[in-house]
Amino acid sequence: MAETLAEFQKFRSEMNEEIHNSNHLGMKRFFALDHQAYEPGALDTKTKELLGLVASTVLRCDDCITYHLVRCAEEGWSRQQVIDALNVALIVGGSITIPHVRRAFARMREIEALNA
Amino acid sequence: MAETLAEFQKFRSEMNEEIHNSNHLGMKRFFALDHQAYEPGALDTKTKELLGLVASTVLRCDDCITYHLVRCAEEGWSRQQVIDALNVALIVGGSITIPHVRRAFARMREIEALNA
Amino acid sequence: MAETLAEFQKFRSEMNEEIHNSNHLGMKRFFALDHQAYEPGALDTKTKELLGLVASTVLRCDDCITYHLVRCAEEGWSRQQVIDALNVALIVGGSITIPHVRRAFARMREIEALNA
Amino acid sequence: MAETLAEFQKFRSEMNEEIHNSNHLGMKRFFALDHQAYEPGALDTKTKELLGLVASTVLRCDDCITYHLVRCAEEGWSRQQVIDALNVALIVGGSITIPHVRRAFARMREIEALNA
Amino acid sequence: MAETLAEFQKFRSEMNEEIHNSNHLGMKRFFALDHQAYEPGALDTKTKELLGLVASTVLRCDDCITYHLVRCAEEGWSRQQVIDALNVALIVGGSITIPHVRRAFARMREIEALNA
Amino acid sequence: MAETLAEFQKFRSEMNEEIHNSNHLGMKRFFALDHQAYEPGALDTKTKELLGLVASTVLRCDDCITYHLVRCAEEGWSRQQVIDALNVALIVGGSITIPHVRRAFARMREIEALNA
Repeated sequence: MAETLAEFQKFRSEMNEEIHNSNHLGMKRFFALDHQAYEPGALDTKTKELLGLVASTVLRCDDCITYHLVRCAEEGWSRQQVIDALNVALIVGGSITIPHVRRAFARMREIEALNA
Repeated sequence: MAETLAEFQKFRSEMNEEIHNSNHLGMKRFFALDHQAYEPGALDTKTKELLGLVASTVLRCDDCITYHLVRCAEEGWSRQQVIDALNVALIVGGSITIPHVRRAFARMREIEALNA
Repeated sequence: MAETLAEFQKFRSEMNEEIHNSNHLGMKRFFALDHQAYEPGALDTKTKELLGLVASTVLRCDDCITYHLVRCAEEGWSRQQVIDALNVALIVGGSITIPHVRRAFARMREIEALNA
Repeated sequence: MAETLAEFQKFRSEMNEEIHNSNHLGMKRFFALDHQAYEPGALDTKTKELLGLVASTVLRCDDCITYHLVRCAEEGWSRQQVIDALNVALIVGGSITIPHVRRAFARMREIEALNA
Repeated sequence: MAETLAEFQKFRSEMNEEIHNSNHLGMKRFFALDHQAYEPGALDTKTKELLGLVASTVLRCDDCITYHLVRCAEEGWSRQQVIDALNVALIVGGSITIPHVRRAFARMREIEALNA
Repeated sequence: MAETLAEFQKFRSEMNEEIHNSNHLGMKRFFALDHQAYEPGALDTKTKELLGLVASTVLRCDDCITYHLVRCAEEGWSRQQVIDALNVALIVGGSITIPHVRRAFARMREIEALNA
């Protein structure tokens, strides 16, 4: 992996703050709406984070996968459940997603080490 | 919608059979694997069908959305829960998914009419 | 083309209303935010509609292309300017966008006939 | 299928001509370059048409698939060879490509009927 | 960011030269056509560079975004105008584009530092 | 390039083993099916590896491109033939694939140095 989880999280929060400080109302509102999409509604947050993980995997965005892997662990999904969700993404998205699945497994190892 | 649900399902099962009859072992195995991905494992089928719906929506495949909308209804997800899942897809995938969300709403109406 | 411009617009406004009536707050807010993204800001609406057209073309969404072609004509972009923008999309997105460029030309003919 | 092969080909050549007549030099050159990409070079045309078919399938463009299926038949690829190429696309691109593979099989049936 | 702007530009021009030296006529012509797409036509270069930026963002290509951010600054688009264009891309492309928007903001900081 | 070929191959085989050891039957089967897709069938392995390269390029996956570049060299495709295949991908996929074509040329240099 090019970047540790801590480095990713530092860059992410630093740049989110810089985007926020640029004072573009549309961007601020979209960031808020993105946050709200995972809050409890007809579906609970736990289910929605798994949806976010699968969406991120089929769209092949490593940073988004990392973010949702952390959130899925926080919401109580087990390693085996996360892998089962990644398998749905792998079948839907095909072998082109394999490099992202590899990096997801490396991130899971990192997340598990932090939580151990 | 260009096609009714019944027309979609007829074409789908007809062509699946034709693909099966072409006797390409790799394709047959992939179709089987695709089916198995939604069978109960660490996650239950109900959860996996919702993952399939969101994956299909962010990847913008109307036929795949139709298929998973039918399966989500069969698995017991309510209209409001399906809409909440589509909202996650809409936020992840952006306004480019809106035409697919429109067609998903039209399909839901059709599915509900059949089940009424 | 499978659908006339009038048929597209009828289906679009009908389904937008149905989505609105489903009362999902997140979806309502996203639709509002999508609308606001094209309102005057640091850039004017005219420029933003051309950005929307090019984004829709490289992402290969016919309905989105149709919508922005209508809006670009309303905002005063000439046929030759729209074609020049489509050319940027064609070069960025490659020959896979050609079928969408063909349908864009057919839609432009329809839009010009309405405005004649 | 929404459209017959003959209808597709009529619309395609009509719109290609309209695009040509719009006299945008960049578009004209890109269409020429697209044509030249499949002419004999270090690789022969036959091999390149199969590459075009697989690229079109993983990018999920039905019109492009139809075009290359016709060309692959003209270049002498057998039905079983085309299916083997579609299988590579299916594995690379995942189940999201299945609806396009179904339509490819329907088109092959149509192409074979014309050549019978 | 994995790479500084200077490192990106060095690798870019080095590899462009290597591609040019490979003497593939089709590639050479495409590179020329890509360059010409942003030259003044029915639209001016300034507008076209903004189109290129939005196309690059919704297609989620960091190198392409970097290139067009530099060009947009050279063409005279202000920081607030570039952010307004990125917002159109964010709304069209959804939250999956956020990591690219973050890196775009980091690049803008780098470009501004060079021009200060 | 962020990573040498040797580093890529070490990470790839390490993570493939970790995925295998996670004992998810669906994933194991998909990895096997992915391997089999390139074995001789109606098409030979050499042709299929070129299909894999073009599919990887239009879908813009650097790791997949690296993998198939190595395999294409092993199967006996010459540098000029690989470049001709990349040109098909470039025309189909557009200028958004250029950064990946640049990295493909850098990888080819690395592969040729190893084989020299």
